[in-house]
Amino acid sequence: MSQIITIAREFGSGGRQFARKLAEELGYDYYDKEILTQIAEHTELSEEYIKSVVDRKPHSLFPINIGHSFSSGMDYQLQQMQSIFSAQFDIINDLADKSNCVIVGRCADYILREKKPYRIFVYADMDYKVARCLENRKDGEPDNAADYEKLIKKLDKNRAQYYNDYTGQTWGDKKYFDLCINTTNIDMDAYVKNLAQLFKK
Amino acid sequence: MSQIITIAREFGSGGRQFARKLAEELGYDYYDKEILTQIAEHTELSEEYIKSVVDRKPHSLFPINIGHSFSSGMDYQLQQMQSIFSAQFDIINDLADKSNCVIVGRCADYILREKKPYRIFVYADMDYKVARCLENRKDGEPDNAADYEKLIKKLDKNRAQYYNDYTGQTWGDKKYFDLCINTTNIDMDAYVKNLAQLFKK
Repeated sequence: MSQIITIAREFGSGGRQFARKLAEELGYDYYDKEILTQIAEHTELSEEYIKSVVDRKPHSLFPINIGHSFSSGMDYQLQQMQSIFSAQFDIINDLADKSNCVIVGRCADYILREKKPYRIFVYADMDYKVARCLENRKDGEPDNAADYEKLIKKLDKNRAQYYNDYTGQTWGDKKYFDLCINTTNIDMDAYVKNLAQLFKK
Repeated sequence: MSQIITIAREFGSGGRQFARKLAEELGYDYYDKEILTQIAEHTELSEEYIKSVVDRKPHSLFPINIGHSFSSGMDYQLQQMQSIFSAQFDIINDLADKSNCVIVGRCADYILREKKPYRIFVYADMDYKVARCLENRKDGEPDNAADYEKLIKKLDKNRAQYYNDYTGQTWGDKKYFDLCINTTNIDMDAYVKNLAQLFKK
């Protein structure tokens, strides 16, 4: 059976960077945005729309790419969400069966619970997350600490709501994880290199 | 400056065993019950009484060992608690300055916060904690899972209350820790040996 590590993370904590480096260090496959791409292929919905559903962003346009007949309003949206959840479930299970891997987000810790993944939650102090985000700021993102803090809180609230609705568990509650890592001020490279020892056999 | 690791833990999670093994693996000094002994020496109160204060057990007897004159009731108890807290503060700071060390409990993570200790919280699933406690059961302790679970909850509630009152923080909230470790079903020896890599320079 393959070894599976799932990583859930607070926005701005460096959880994705942590996950990628851990996968590299262990020589495991790494899955993150690839999962959205695969869901899009399975459901014939656009990646952007799928992302808006899993990130709970408002979506004003109906996201039809090809070939769906309309039933109206909520029923149709519900049906699409179910398609996304169902595709996500199948794809994550397939990936997990294929090889040792690190999977970021997508409720993978819950979806794979019967395969006993090692479940990591990555978090950090708010000041650190804000500073980190401002340092790596892209166009269109807030350019000051107060606004970035608001954004982080909003994004994490969305993540939490998606996770809680989907799993019936509480996002970030340590009892659902094997290890919770505070990345505040860590030297990521050295940290991952050392922590990876836990998984080497 | 010495490296300080503080360990807070849920009752039955194996946190103390984890702490002792980690200290051994790193060649660090290890402090746990020794702190109570030293507080007793400093305050001239009995170790048993000090333990009852820090564990919040009811104490029906006035715990005077030697030489105190009575002022009555609450004032006296308050004064004694302050002596204990004050001694605890001084002793833990002294120990932390002396050498690299692992310190279990006693709000050391909070007391030493300006020295930037590495703060670990150890926890586990309730079923695992109960099974572990029953396996290591001593005379007088509950002999069935339901009663042991009640005891664990009571003891942790006391720990939490002591910690929360003393620190103004929330016991077990991951944001006050650098690493939270779920010990459910781990191989403790192998785990500690690997995790210790994080602290080796």
